[in-house]
Amino acid sequence: MEKINVGIIGVGRIGRLHAKSITYNIPDAVIKSVSDIKLDGVNEWAESLGIKNVYDDYHKIIEDKEIDAVLVCSSTDTHAQISIEAIEAGKHVFCEKPIDYDLDRISKVLTAVKKSGVKFQVGFNRRFDHNFNRINQITKDGVIGEPHIIKITSRDPEPPPIEYVKVSGGLFFDMTIHDFDMARFQAGSEASEVFAVGASLVDKKIGEAGDVDTAVVTIKFQNGAIAVIDNSRKAVYGYDQRVEVFGSKGSIEAKNDTETNTILRTEQAVSKDKPLYFFLERYMKSFINEMKEFFEAIKNDTETPVKGIDGLNAVIIAMAAKKSLEEGRPIKISEIV
Amino acid sequence: MEKINVGIIGVGRIGRLHAKSITYNIPDAVIKSVSDIKLDGVNEWAESLGIKNVYDDYHKIIEDKEIDAVLVCSSTDTHAQISIEAIEAGKHVFCEKPIDYDLDRISKVLTAVKKSGVKFQVGFNRRFDHNFNRINQITKDGVIGEPHIIKITSRDPEPPPIEYVKVSGGLFFDMTIHDFDMARFQAGSEASEVFAVGASLVDKKIGEAGDVDTAVVTIKFQNGAIAVIDNSRKAVYGYDQRVEVFGSKGSIEAKNDTETNTILRTEQAVSKDKPLYFFLERYMKSFINEMKEFFEAIKNDTETPVKGIDGLNAVIIAMAAKKSLEEGRPIKISEIV
Amino acid sequence: MEKINVGIIGVGRIGRLHAKSITYNIPDAVIKSVSDIKLDGVNEWAESLGIKNVYDDYHKIIEDKEIDAVLVCSSTDTHAQISIEAIEAGKHVFCEKPIDYDLDRISKVLTAVKKSGVKFQVGFNRRFDHNFNRINQITKDGVIGEPHIIKITSRDPEPPPIEYVKVSGGLFFDMTIHDFDMARFQAGSEASEVFAVGASLVDKKIGEAGDVDTAVVTIKFQNGAIAVIDNSRKAVYGYDQRVEVFGSKGSIEAKNDTETNTILRTEQAVSKDKPLYFFLERYMKSFINEMKEFFEAIKNDTETPVKGIDGLNAVIIAMAAKKSLEEGRPIKISEIV
Amino acid sequence: MEKINVGIIGVGRIGRLHAKSITYNIPDAVIKSVSDIKLDGVNEWAESLGIKNVYDDYHKIIEDKEIDAVLVCSSTDTHAQISIEAIEAGKHVFCEKPIDYDLDRISKVLTAVKKSGVKFQVGFNRRFDHNFNRINQITKDGVIGEPHIIKITSRDPEPPPIEYVKVSGGLFFDMTIHDFDMARFQAGSEASEVFAVGASLVDKKIGEAGDVDTAVVTIKFQNGAIAVIDNSRKAVYGYDQRVEVFGSKGSIEAKNDTETNTILRTEQAVSKDKPLYFFLERYMKSFINEMKEFFEAIKNDTETPVKGIDGLNAVIIAMAAKKSLEEGRPIKISEIV
Repeated sequence: MEKINVGIIGVGRIGRLHAKSITYNIPDAVIKSVSDIKLDGVNEWAESLGIKNVYDDYHKIIEDKEIDAVLVCSSTDTHAQISIEAIEAGKHVFCEKPIDYDLDRISKVLTAVKKSGVKFQVGFNRRFDHNFNRINQITKDGVIGEPHIIKITSRDPEPPPIEYVKVSGGLFFDMTIHDFDMARFQAGSEASEVFAVGASLVDKKIGEAGDVDTAVVTIKFQNGAIAVIDNSRKAVYGYDQRVEVFGSKGSIEAKNDTETNTILRTEQAVSKDKPLYFFLERYMKSFINEMKEFFEAIKNDTETPVKGIDGLNAVIIAMAAKKSLEEGRPIKISEIV
Repeated sequence: MEKINVGIIGVGRIGRLHAKSITYNIPDAVIKSVSDIKLDGVNEWAESLGIKNVYDDYHKIIEDKEIDAVLVCSSTDTHAQISIEAIEAGKHVFCEKPIDYDLDRISKVLTAVKKSGVKFQVGFNRRFDHNFNRINQITKDGVIGEPHIIKITSRDPEPPPIEYVKVSGGLFFDMTIHDFDMARFQAGSEASEVFAVGASLVDKKIGEAGDVDTAVVTIKFQNGAIAVIDNSRKAVYGYDQRVEVFGSKGSIEAKNDTETNTILRTEQAVSKDKPLYFFLERYMKSFINEMKEFFEAIKNDTETPVKGIDGLNAVIIAMAAKKSLEEGRPIKISEIV
Repeated sequence: MEKINVGIIGVGRIGRLHAKSITYNIPDAVIKSVSDIKLDGVNEWAESLGIKNVYDDYHKIIEDKEIDAVLVCSSTDTHAQISIEAIEAGKHVFCEKPIDYDLDRISKVLTAVKKSGVKFQVGFNRRFDHNFNRINQITKDGVIGEPHIIKITSRDPEPPPIEYVKVSGGLFFDMTIHDFDMARFQAGSEASEVFAVGASLVDKKIGEAGDVDTAVVTIKFQNGAIAVIDNSRKAVYGYDQRVEVFGSKGSIEAKNDTETNTILRTEQAVSKDKPLYFFLERYMKSFINEMKEFFEAIKNDTETPVKGIDGLNAVIIAMAAKKSLEEGRPIKISEIV
Repeated sequence: MEKINVGIIGVGRIGRLHAKSITYNIPDAVIKSVSDIKLDGVNEWAESLGIKNVYDDYHKIIEDKEIDAVLVCSSTDTHAQISIEAIEAGKHVFCEKPIDYDLDRISKVLTAVKKSGVKFQVGFNRRFDHNFNRINQITKDGVIGEPHIIKITSRDPEPPPIEYVKVSGGLFFDMTIHDFDMARFQAGSEASEVFAVGASLVDKKIGEAGDVDTAVVTIKFQNGAIAVIDNSRKAVYGYDQRVEVFGSKGSIEAKNDTETNTILRTEQAVSKDKPLYFFLERYMKSFINEMKEFFEAIKNDTETPVKGIDGLNAVIIAMAAKKSLEEGRPIKISEIV
């Protein structure tokens, strides 16, 4: 079988990460071309990975008949437009999350996918994390029975720059969006109602920018399960990423990953490693795994593991959470869509 | 110094437990008399602990001038009445939780305490648990900074009989009441708003009886902290009692206690002990400690560690939670009182 | 049934501990009399536990026909003599460990027991520890198959006074003796060969006193199992008491007990409680349990769980270890007895 | 700077593993040529990694002036001869462990290295394991003070084929050799005496082949530290690889790595992942890290982290252990060399 020719649009941090994953871990795929609006240092980097073409115009990738699959890793505001162009050109598309913040534009992407029949996958990488994936497998296998309560702890080690907070769409759109997808993933059901409580406890400037930095979001699912997410922009001890699913026959819980499994005992304390601090380190395996599954879906003509509807529904929950916070009441999903 | 003479009104499971704690662990106190409306086997039991007097009428205890302190361990509906009588007779009173389900009756007890100047303590034993107490100490010492998020996992191993559910006041009053107190205890602040989500997922009959068996309750506190409690009437793996306080400088979390600290490794699994199954076993130390502190408060004429206001405020939160569940909206504490 | 009348000979720390255990936990037994060569404060203490008679001559206990059982908690050099007198007077005897350091004197005690038919138990309390007992049960139940390797970590928080080291018989007799018994207990077999390596790394004075403070002892058992014990007189982080049994079908391991099950996460570290520091705290449950089982053996006329032969064989291993250390070679048990 | 040209002699499992590590993780090195006596499938594999030359005669690699560094991954009996040839041809050499089982032949390799001045590294990969390396760092930094006791648990999931046992040199040479190096690594000192106890408890055929499958080895080091290694050819629950260093100021201990950090709680048990089963999975990071450090030593002209003397001294300890087992007595290192 021939290799799948890949083009990557946008080679910032995440685009380069995927490029490396594909080069070193996906023998079935080869990166033919990359593009970016800024090309500083891109040529050297591309050469080091054996990538032939570097463009400053992504249309060259979309117009290339030999390209089979496109990774959309550009800025969020361009995701929908580029995805649609690539889909219409018959390319399989992996689109970084979120597809967009506008429900209409997301819908257009989904419509394009449906019409064309290409593979489309959204970059909710945490579904492919070894810990969270194990939880999902155990749950699906019925080991813990029907899910009743889903608990997600998701705390960043440090708040982003205040300038980022002002344009990101806020905590629910730039950070909790992953947790909303995780809740759906583990619940195996769709949300029906969302209630969000939040405050600006970490940094007053975040509050002044109209956002919260600490939040607890409760989600009711159609199958009866209740999810609760707690977020903080700042956990001084590191990147705290835990999930627990409690069901009728038991529970399955994922602890944080650490660099080592050592225990130090001194006169002062018995101590273990802090959680891995950086998201790239913490979720590296998941980034590789989502690429693997994307290309397997193409190769075997099977469904992608995270589809457009998943991209859409996480945004809908984020919208409900934001509205709930603003209005101080639970919001039914039916009020959003 | 002379020993404190104690009378215990109601010697069911909890009254007998306190009697044993006092006899074996509190050298400063001696149980002089006990009373109960049912005296089957009480005489034998009392004799085994060296208790002199056994009555079927609690007034004999209240009228006994030699009795310094009374433990009110009778049925909930009698707590307020008996407490007031004992207080007015000048006895120090330890009253099992809840004081009552009616705010007026609770207020009358508090007024009586204020007027008489006796010591009054409510039986929120979990504050005296070694794990939760450590959390409180660490938090008070400022080690984790300002509390931002408080997470309480509180799951029973088995639902109570359906007949009990019908009269107990429901999940929030018979079970979550402890967690409401724990949230206040760890937050170090008063609740301002409560939102409850619940469902009947464990046993349909509980739902038919008008109650829920699974719940997630979010509480906003005046100091900005947000607490979230998750409850289930049935955790098949045992009695799941965990608390985490997350703050600006770190977090402190209590795991479940187990019978042993052993790890078994076989071809099938690596396994540890399940959580202690029974609440008496899990909280035995806390029951002893609350007695110690009650009698120390009497001896040293200091404040009791859990006062009437604590009994009152936990009930107020429970009322808000119930109303929230019924009306599907967050309830401000100011709507209750 | 009538209560078992108990006399305690020697009411130092350990004698008083047993007295308290019996008073509060063994309804079938009552302490009638205690004796000690020093009576400072003994009367007050005895009164607080309701003990009637306090003597400065232990013969009064042995001569008392009403006394059924005697606890020998006096100094080690008197254990054998007093035990024999008590046994010959028809008393059941619980003798603190070690019975003696002289094989002949131990043998005389065992002969006396055999002749009289009374119950005799040696104070190897650690067999009754909840963790180590669980290991034993799992092993006996065949869950981990045949035992192959037994690992015992036994480290004290602080070395004893140098004066004690000079008279105690040394590390193997005053400290490792417990581990020798534990190894036999978990192996379910008798030692055949012992090899000891040791050094004076903690405190040079210990070496100058002719002893070691750090040791690793390897024991071959008749059933093929190999045990290895590591000792230190000083673990700065607390009292380190762990056991692991590895077998053909798995392993079972006991971790240290801690005061709480809390985890503190700060910018500096993720830390847990240090092991319980003091042996009385760590082994409190085991002291109570050994008393329970001693009195049950008397009540039900069954075998005691730790017999004279157990007291003898631990001393034999200690002798072999000492000889091994001195001669720098493995010592066969047959060289000792 | 130009890339370091690498030749790999022997491309079985371990040779291929290093090839992959270099290709994907060492930008400073490029594999130019590989050789093997069996070339089945080697060409396809080499092509997939972009390796130009495939030979059936390793001399072609040694004679190639462009090759800077050689990895000796052939069978053990050829390590010394090939290493010497490569060294004399001026190549830097990475030699898989063990260099040889004969002290003279090892000495010749070390002499050749000394004479030529090339870099020489032995494949004791476990020194580069994230857990064991952390232990070493903590120990070197003085955090736990002077090392007193070193405990190494090293148990394989399954015994090798009996045919392998017959030719491997036995447990101490094919398995414990890693642990001997680990003990030296963590002790930071040289062994002075070795005592080994062993038995054939897993499989009688191993005993019939003249080997043991279960062993406990005690090693005295010149700095006073005592190491104890326990080995089994069969731990049914997986590959058990733990190390603990106990010192004057504390201890540092490494637990097993697992695939996930999840905890499953059911009515039956609370269970965690079993240790990683396969050594390649368990030690993957260490294999990559040893390559990184080898090429860094070449690039920066610094010392390699595992030198010829380390290869020699581990074999000397293995010889002492074997002799100890045979003669039933501790063996001084001075009796071997």
